[in-house]
Amino acid sequence: MILDFFNIAANLKKIPRQGWINKLSLEKPESVADHTYSLAIMGMVFSDLENFNTEKILKIILLHDLAESIVGDITPDQISKNKKTDLENKAIKKILRKLPQSIQKQYIELWEEYQSNISAEVKIIHQLDKLEMALQAKIYSNEGHSKKKLSSFLKSAKDEITDPKLLKLFIKISKQHV
Amino acid sequence: MILDFFNIAANLKKIPRQGWINKLSLEKPESVADHTYSLAIMGMVFSDLENFNTEKILKIILLHDLAESIVGDITPDQISKNKKTDLENKAIKKILRKLPQSIQKQYIELWEEYQSNISAEVKIIHQLDKLEMALQAKIYSNEGHSKKKLSSFLKSAKDEITDPKLLKLFIKISKQHV
Repeated sequence: MILDFFNIAANLKKIPRQGWINKLSLEKPESVADHTYSLAIMGMVFSDLENFNTEKILKIILLHDLAESIVGDITPDQISKNKKTDLENKAIKKILRKLPQSIQKQYIELWEEYQSNISAEVKIIHQLDKLEMALQAKIYSNEGHSKKKLSSFLKSAKDEITDPKLLKLFIKISKQHV
Repeated sequence: MILDFFNIAANLKKIPRQGWINKLSLEKPESVADHTYSLAIMGMVFSDLENFNTEKILKIILLHDLAESIVGDITPDQISKNKKTDLENKAIKKILRKLPQSIQKQYIELWEEYQSNISAEVKIIHQLDKLEMALQAKIYSNEGHSKKKLSSFLKSAKDEITDPKLLKLFIKISKQHV
């Protein structure tokens, strides 16, 4: 059964980040696994520097998009936010049932904490998620993709990032030419 | 400077896992970031079940292939193992210098621990790394790629996995049809 769980997680290598397809018409954008790796390493560094609970942050990041292995990467224009949350909640519970009870319970609690967006760690993860998207938008922009089309991603990130240190990083990202 | 580090990590999304190109002639195989995500989630589950130090395991996994962002994914037939280690040591130190001193030191120590292959956690990571490769080999095999060409990956995994629980998982993987 653990193996079923590993296969579901590995499937994120094949789930494309839909936003880049919809807005940039990219055929092979980064995968959800690609994004989650980059977010995890950003979360590790930021958490270690700011003395958050790094283990908790990393676990939540590794789990945060796992439901997309079943439901795909649903963008805000496809269905309502409530409907999306509902689909993802069902999917993640189905996925986590593949694991032994002891850790199943722990991971469901982490997922629920992520959804509630109340704790300090989770608020940082939601903002880092947007920062990672901004970083990738800037990478695509520097590779020659339409700056105009990418500006909506940068704007959506800017609207959600409130932590002063993350905001500083966001400003640096939006100015960078690599 | 942290932003330089994030860009280097994000570059792993674009580094292909060379073994699949060499042996299967895949044009767009999984990325190193894809592999690392899958390995991290496997490491998290296995560590939580077996009561290893999960934070340490996750950090080492997130760092373990980071040098490949600069040197690429070098396969054993390209250069000697010593030469590869030397190149990767130089690259990782160059990358980690982008970070503030406090965490730079911590991550260099984790990298050195990984290279030494002595601690319990690191021995598990090396075996999980092979197990993840076997999982992906089986996924490619079930997608129709040459079983014969993929058998060398399964053999190389089998040769390195000694932990009884990981060996059980390996046997299940080698039998699975998804």
